[in-house]
Amino acid sequence: MQDAQLPLPNWSVDQWFNTPKPISPLELHGKVVLIEAFQMLCPGCVAHGLPLAQQVHDTFSHEDVAVIGLHTVFEHHAAMTAVSLEAFLHEYRITFPVGIDAPGGSTTPVTMQRYGLRGTPSMLLLDQAGVLVAHHFGQISPLKLGAEIASLVAKAPPQSVAPINESRPACDDTGCTI
Amino acid sequence: MQDAQLPLPNWSVDQWFNTPKPISPLELHGKVVLIEAFQMLCPGCVAHGLPLAQQVHDTFSHEDVAVIGLHTVFEHHAAMTAVSLEAFLHEYRITFPVGIDAPGGSTTPVTMQRYGLRGTPSMLLLDQAGVLVAHHFGQISPLKLGAEIASLVAKAPPQSVAPINESRPACDDTGCTI
Amino acid sequence: MQDAQLPLPNWSVDQWFNTPKPISPLELHGKVVLIEAFQMLCPGCVAHGLPLAQQVHDTFSHEDVAVIGLHTVFEHHAAMTAVSLEAFLHEYRITFPVGIDAPGGSTTPVTMQRYGLRGTPSMLLLDQAGVLVAHHFGQISPLKLGAEIASLVAKAPPQSVAPINESRPACDDTGCTI
Amino acid sequence: MQDAQLPLPNWSVDQWFNTPKPISPLELHGKVVLIEAFQMLCPGCVAHGLPLAQQVHDTFSHEDVAVIGLHTVFEHHAAMTAVSLEAFLHEYRITFPVGIDAPGGSTTPVTMQRYGLRGTPSMLLLDQAGVLVAHHFGQISPLKLGAEIASLVAKAPPQSVAPINESRPACDDTGCTI
Repeated sequence: MQDAQLPLPNWSVDQWFNTPKPISPLELHGKVVLIEAFQMLCPGCVAHGLPLAQQVHDTFSHEDVAVIGLHTVFEHHAAMTAVSLEAFLHEYRITFPVGIDAPGGSTTPVTMQRYGLRGTPSMLLLDQAGVLVAHHFGQISPLKLGAEIASLVAKAPPQSVAPINESRPACDDTGCTI
Repeated sequence: MQDAQLPLPNWSVDQWFNTPKPISPLELHGKVVLIEAFQMLCPGCVAHGLPLAQQVHDTFSHEDVAVIGLHTVFEHHAAMTAVSLEAFLHEYRITFPVGIDAPGGSTTPVTMQRYGLRGTPSMLLLDQAGVLVAHHFGQISPLKLGAEIASLVAKAPPQSVAPINESRPACDDTGCTI
Repeated sequence: MQDAQLPLPNWSVDQWFNTPKPISPLELHGKVVLIEAFQMLCPGCVAHGLPLAQQVHDTFSHEDVAVIGLHTVFEHHAAMTAVSLEAFLHEYRITFPVGIDAPGGSTTPVTMQRYGLRGTPSMLLLDQAGVLVAHHFGQISPLKLGAEIASLVAKAPPQSVAPINESRPACDDTGCTI
Repeated sequence: MQDAQLPLPNWSVDQWFNTPKPISPLELHGKVVLIEAFQMLCPGCVAHGLPLAQQVHDTFSHEDVAVIGLHTVFEHHAAMTAVSLEAFLHEYRITFPVGIDAPGGSTTPVTMQRYGLRGTPSMLLLDQAGVLVAHHFGQISPLKLGAEIASLVAKAPPQSVAPINESRPACDDTGCTI
């Protein structure tokens, strides 16, 4: 079994918005998952990344596709606090669940390091088994993204999802062993 | 067998551009087909419809998806002749095959009547068996179009295409009997 | 007296649209004049130049500012005839006067040569005495254009326009002697 | 003497960015002044108002035109603090001076009340004597704004500015008597 076939390790989130309770990747198995990693003061996220993620949330059935925002602050930490983020999500009408990536020992937050993100906006696309199938940085084509998502939805119907190995190596806030 | 399951009747095209020889729907069976019906002097076609059709042509494998332009002139006929269209395609860098819809007895050309198009731009999406699965008029979402196309590509692999009934009722320039 | 202070020589126009009679620069003296040189199949003209010229026509008083379109066809001549242009102006809702630049002995039409235009879209801005004060090629900033026009309108009120020397050297279709 | 001819009362600003020292309207007399009232989490400000104000700052001579940003927070106060604003200005490359409108006894800050602003983005345009000549709310035409500014610059050269009456009624943080 290859590493590439393992599910993406869990995110480390301190606080959630737009969801009544925390969300883990495990409970999203069976759905295609789009992770939008952003910072609220990143112009490319505001102009391109977040509107496109919201459009995915508005276009696809929530039975098939889950959109998760990850606020991965790696600069201006004091400027992008939870209270600022909450107002931002309200003003920009972001309605999908958004989690705050947990601060680690360095400037870069925990999940951002774990996933090896280059910056914001970054989009990660996971198949119904939680395996990473696409990783985009910067501005991307809506036509192409729509095709990537629909291709995953069509190719792997829920009933054919591989059973999740619950005993797979865990991640904690200092790293992941996979 | 339902009408909805029959392939779209053939187009009536007088002259082609961007292709060494005429194209018929029959030879596209096995591929998803996007038909972009446009007029070269229609602002919505120039601003939205044609750039999106060109993007589909540039994004998807030509093994899976064929884009066909149809110049369906129903107004200002003397202004949108073949020689004008040829220059237009050159200047706007349209590289997919484009056919001129045959003029009929009325202002509206033959194929446009046959397909019941409301105006331009119109997009028709056919599955691998040539059956119409979506009909859009006006501006459409690239994300959604990408999803529709990829969904067709993924759901119906070439080998599963239903055999075409070559003896199905023919269309001529005055109409179709299906 | 310097050449730069002489009025721009007359245009050579074969046919006009959106005006009941031919227009000459002389009768526009006392107004700021914006000349938009374009080709109906030039994508930059359609996307940027013409909408901006129309916006000038819609924004400024016609007592102060005159917008003149000049169809300067230097390629695909058979594709951009008068009948095609007329339909184009109708479909794109161009309402300012547009003249067809007279064909000369070469591919480039007469006025285009006379004014030394590099291509389309080109914008020429004349003060109230008909003297060229700005020459733009390609996409330009609406903010800056608005400032240029208003600056001319404010600086040279109609009553201060210098008398026109009617005996100044004439232009004919083969050139100008100034 | 009419009220409309009186200079706009002073702003009340607690903290400045992009300027080595506080700025008062008095020291801007002789220049056209554009005041951009915004909130950093207002989508219309980010998409339209601030880019246009920055373009004015980049286009006109700083001898002729001064652009002043005013952070007029009337909602989500805890989300749009000075530290958040500072990072915002850095990320969005805003280079003109920006002052934080002083909080008053109500939700609406002091200067915003004093000027009677309806919301954000608002643009106020002052002539060289500090008199309000235009008040825009929402999205505005760059062509028209360029014309308004240049018209003021051209009509009232610095030497013709009326002497400022230093003894005119003062404003304090609870209001203005004019």
